[in-house]
Amino acid sequence: MPTTTDTESGHNDGARRGRPGYDQETVLNIAVQVFNKHGYDATSMGTLAENLGISKSAIYHHVPSKGDLLRLALDHALAPLEAVGEDERARAGSAGERLEFFLRGTIRVLVERQQYVTLLLRLRGNTEVERSALERRRAMDRRLSDLVVAAQQEGSLREDIDPRTTTRLLFGTINSLVEWYRPDGPVSAEALEEHAIGMMLDGLHTRGK
Amino acid sequence: MPTTTDTESGHNDGARRGRPGYDQETVLNIAVQVFNKHGYDATSMGTLAENLGISKSAIYHHVPSKGDLLRLALDHALAPLEAVGEDERARAGSAGERLEFFLRGTIRVLVERQQYVTLLLRLRGNTEVERSALERRRAMDRRLSDLVVAAQQEGSLREDIDPRTTTRLLFGTINSLVEWYRPDGPVSAEALEEHAIGMMLDGLHTRGK
Repeated sequence: MPTTTDTESGHNDGARRGRPGYDQETVLNIAVQVFNKHGYDATSMGTLAENLGISKSAIYHHVPSKGDLLRLALDHALAPLEAVGEDERARAGSAGERLEFFLRGTIRVLVERQQYVTLLLRLRGNTEVERSALERRRAMDRRLSDLVVAAQQEGSLREDIDPRTTTRLLFGTINSLVEWYRPDGPVSAEALEEHAIGMMLDGLHTRGK
Repeated sequence: MPTTTDTESGHNDGARRGRPGYDQETVLNIAVQVFNKHGYDATSMGTLAENLGISKSAIYHHVPSKGDLLRLALDHALAPLEAVGEDERARAGSAGERLEFFLRGTIRVLVERQQYVTLLLRLRGNTEVERSALERRRAMDRRLSDLVVAAQQEGSLREDIDPRTTTRLLFGTINSLVEWYRPDGPVSAEALEEHAIGMMLDGLHTRGK
């Protein structure tokens, strides 16, 4: 997975170049929170500098532009999401099993990279960096859609809901988790995964009713 | 429901006061699209004027401030959503039936008022108007939560997922519909409602597997 490797070596470079107390990763972590709070469009480099407690030129020391910050932040969400689809378990076994692995893996990335995925999901596509990220999201949609079609064909998923709608209901439900899930709340990441999978695949109705 | 009545009489006043071709409703419809595209924080009255093709002072003729535009727009989502919970069918019958009525009614409002609900769901709570709308959303959360508890107690909903998580999974799934549903696409509003309810309550797995 060259994307992941590139990203990681990029972080190391950033860390080496960074000032004491601020590596690129820290700058990114704070930047993504500010983007999520005020919206990417509404966030100036000045606002970022204020939140980081450093000067604008110190930010430019880490990244050349606001667009580069966004690109790096988005890759923190996209690379692990894409890795789920590349995993052998998303490619071997029955379609039903592969689909469930894909859904569970996606939920795990959402929990682990919640701020970054939130940023990704709120993109409006106003810039080239945003449009390129949205294209990578669409590629993941197609992968899920292929799994849904295969699972319907093998008879493990109901066919009265067309594959396109099924795909959107699944990703919609999973994506909505970032809006309310709190890792420090009463629901563990494992329970969240079980509950979301439980509703999507088996429904909330008591069985046998 | 005094809120609805107030709003509607407000619209009529706006329409009477408005210039030819622009009543308050039209201004709102365009404003909500611009807010959704650029984010509320990032949208200036100047940007709104540009999109409306009128001067800033002509907007002030319709509403005193950007915050008032937001408040009116949010009420277009909140009033009909609250009306679903006030409906007799959300208050009579078995808990399972009341819950399903509530969920279906909410989906219908989302489709009918998609732009306004999108605005509501993207609020960040940075202003008083936003916080007041979020408080009204929380009241709806409590109403759904009460229905979920009652449905679990009567045995129609599974109890292995706690009521709070169930509530959030349900609203998360329903809210996510505004992100992808297109009223002019191949899925009718009725089919969307059936499909979303079908997944949430009965799951996507083939029954009997």
